[in-house]
Amino acid sequence: MIQKILIANRGEIALRIVRACRELGIKTLAVYSEADVQSLHVQLADEAICIGGPRSDESYLKADRIIAAAEIADVDAIHPGYGFLSENADFAEQCESCNIKFIGPSSASIRKMGDKAIAKDTMRKAGVPIVPGSDGPIDDETDAVKTARKIGYPVIIKAVAGGGGRGMRIAHNDISFAKEFHVARNEAQKAFGNGSVYIEKYVEKPRHIEFQVLADQHGKIVHLGERDCSVQRRHQKLIEEAPSPFLTANPALRKAMGKAAIKATEAADYEGAGTIEFLVDAKGNFYFIEMNTRIQVEHPVTEEVTGIDLIKQQILIANGEPLGFDQKDITFERHAIECRINAEDPARNFAPSPGTIGLYYAPGGHGVRVDSHIYSGYQIPPYYDSMIGKLICYGSTRQIAIERAFRALNEYLIRGIKTTIPLHKAIMADPIFKEGKATTAYMEDFLTRNPPEGFV
Amino acid sequence: MIQKILIANRGEIALRIVRACRELGIKTLAVYSEADVQSLHVQLADEAICIGGPRSDESYLKADRIIAAAEIADVDAIHPGYGFLSENADFAEQCESCNIKFIGPSSASIRKMGDKAIAKDTMRKAGVPIVPGSDGPIDDETDAVKTARKIGYPVIIKAVAGGGGRGMRIAHNDISFAKEFHVARNEAQKAFGNGSVYIEKYVEKPRHIEFQVLADQHGKIVHLGERDCSVQRRHQKLIEEAPSPFLTANPALRKAMGKAAIKATEAADYEGAGTIEFLVDAKGNFYFIEMNTRIQVEHPVTEEVTGIDLIKQQILIANGEPLGFDQKDITFERHAIECRINAEDPARNFAPSPGTIGLYYAPGGHGVRVDSHIYSGYQIPPYYDSMIGKLICYGSTRQIAIERAFRALNEYLIRGIKTTIPLHKAIMADPIFKEGKATTAYMEDFLTRNPPEGFV
Repeated sequence: MIQKILIANRGEIALRIVRACRELGIKTLAVYSEADVQSLHVQLADEAICIGGPRSDESYLKADRIIAAAEIADVDAIHPGYGFLSENADFAEQCESCNIKFIGPSSASIRKMGDKAIAKDTMRKAGVPIVPGSDGPIDDETDAVKTARKIGYPVIIKAVAGGGGRGMRIAHNDISFAKEFHVARNEAQKAFGNGSVYIEKYVEKPRHIEFQVLADQHGKIVHLGERDCSVQRRHQKLIEEAPSPFLTANPALRKAMGKAAIKATEAADYEGAGTIEFLVDAKGNFYFIEMNTRIQVEHPVTEEVTGIDLIKQQILIANGEPLGFDQKDITFERHAIECRINAEDPARNFAPSPGTIGLYYAPGGHGVRVDSHIYSGYQIPPYYDSMIGKLICYGSTRQIAIERAFRALNEYLIRGIKTTIPLHKAIMADPIFKEGKATTAYMEDFLTRNPPEGFV
Repeated sequence: MIQKILIANRGEIALRIVRACRELGIKTLAVYSEADVQSLHVQLADEAICIGGPRSDESYLKADRIIAAAEIADVDAIHPGYGFLSENADFAEQCESCNIKFIGPSSASIRKMGDKAIAKDTMRKAGVPIVPGSDGPIDDETDAVKTARKIGYPVIIKAVAGGGGRGMRIAHNDISFAKEFHVARNEAQKAFGNGSVYIEKYVEKPRHIEFQVLADQHGKIVHLGERDCSVQRRHQKLIEEAPSPFLTANPALRKAMGKAAIKATEAADYEGAGTIEFLVDAKGNFYFIEMNTRIQVEHPVTEEVTGIDLIKQQILIANGEPLGFDQKDITFERHAIECRINAEDPARNFAPSPGTIGLYYAPGGHGVRVDSHIYSGYQIPPYYDSMIGKLICYGSTRQIAIERAFRALNEYLIRGIKTTIPLHKAIMADPIFKEGKATTAYMEDFLTRNPPEGFV
């Protein structure tokens, strides 16, 4: 039986884990950096150990110090949260070899899903649709054109060594393909010293829809429905909601994706809470993109819609307990929307805005949940992610959830720093978002229509 | 169509009404006393008018000033909240004659339910069980004994002019009755100058269970289930929950009480949100005690269990809209518990503890709702009720709701004043409460077992 958990994280997720442990009667050990002494999760945990300097690589990424703290304090398990070491297979392996339960899947599962090529291959074999593409790099132009035709235009040409959008070119037909293929190879050679490229189906203006899954140690797997995370800026999620308005209009698609999510989880030999991420095009084709082998930032929308506490489920599963419900028991009664509140200045190209919070007043009342570690007088350290809280609003319909989010955003008082609250207010009032039509192309369009200088 | 509402109240309920109006797109006018300038509902309302001095009888009870403010600001409706003028039939009548919609039932309904004798008579005629008793005062000892026997022992002898427990005597048989009858008459004569008494069945260690009802202007009435409010100190509710653990063990009784609540609402010619209060004895006999013709402090537990926003429903009904759901659509999926957070010092016999709040941090996360108007730096005026907020915790089971409430109570930081938080923590950890066995006799017993001096 797990009796004490080390929380290898900080900020709101560390506090979230403290809360779940307290409700389960499990003791907590916070590990913290020198910059996080005054953090709320440190105050609220039963014990706390400082593990190093303010930079992540001096503290929250120091696997050996965290393991040492775990051994000193005699914990049974480590909850990694998200980010930091949460998807680090070596760290999970270290925990395993020290007989400390890593709250998450095995290091083997993490490794398998962490390697994109292996993950895709696993999914293809399991019959989960993946984005069609070339088998690895392709250097010959004639072969490449043939492959592009087979995949079907539009296609995207991506540098093998690339990332962050660099070395990517889109082609809509044979003629543009020939041109873009060469441009992509040349760009890749210049940028990465490696001209190798591969080809994939280009999914135009997709929706990002992910399924939450839970798998216990006894072979039972359920999904907890989907989250629509299409509202992203530069691949960073800003707003997440459940259910997805697109899937509500396509219930057969929801069913098919749910089945695929279960299949994907099976194929990953999974244990714990995980997320199967899909891209979905306008016609309802869906493609596996990756599996997140940890809790997600946006997990609360699923909790509010299903009533199931995901952090508690993670802990119960890690404890060897069988899932207490079947797929048919999971119902989706409400609509929930999460707005990520970041300490950023939209008017200065979303530059981080660390500093000391003067007055802080968080919204409340019916249908409003706030997950945040900040308080009046809290100093935001400049070393970490800029997210300072999550506002989750829910109601019986999507419209009510949006109206409630707009109301709650207007109640927030956070003095002393700039935040993304004004941006969220504008999105909640935007007709395209309200109609449920946002794709991953939405934010770029929105910011063209609403220059960020206006969000003050 | 209602476009602007005057909120004739203060504190958390005024803020609650602002929130509902904002979500509905209705403008709000706050009226406030000189002591409430810095109150959050004043800041968040669209308009605000000061109506007088800090004492209630100089401001929140000044019907004429409130009506004048309504006319100056051209509002369509007045929401009275709870307390103050909310059950004042004359005020409702004044609104009616000024063509301002009083959000609540007609002045005639308020009057009918406000007079205890008429209310009981109405219910008896409608077939709703009431506490058996003498028909009015009874002065002759022989008649009195006959009546007591007919009612069945134990009985309670109450002074007609009494109140607050004075002049009340309990008798368990003919012999003690003869003695107590004289004592009660003498006490009543001395205390109130009127020796008249009446006799009622004494319900021993009852539970206080009330049903929430909604009635539209088109004759449709539904109930939203019950709230168990048995945890009271000196007739002041401290903790309320839904559903009632006693009724969960007696589903047939729940059904019968729900039917009686609908019958009672019909008999009251009702419109809007109301509450039918019952006493329930250990055998499952239930008796109507009164109808509250307004929103209750404890309405959030019903909202969290049913997902229905009661303040919005009040406004929609006042607007003439038909109820958007039938009895069968109302489901009860969660368990919710409310703790009233009062600025009182349990160690000093619950004396009010006004003052300035230093640091304020309210709990959050999954299953936690906070309805409160306070913030860091807020000064609690000494003129009003001591309630400074309500903590509502919910989950899929009663046990989870209790564990969550205990966790959330431990997170609260309210510096500078004394509160009832330590008392609530002790109750959440008390085996009798946890087993769902609390009756209205619970708090007295609890405070004997746990001297309030310990709650610091």
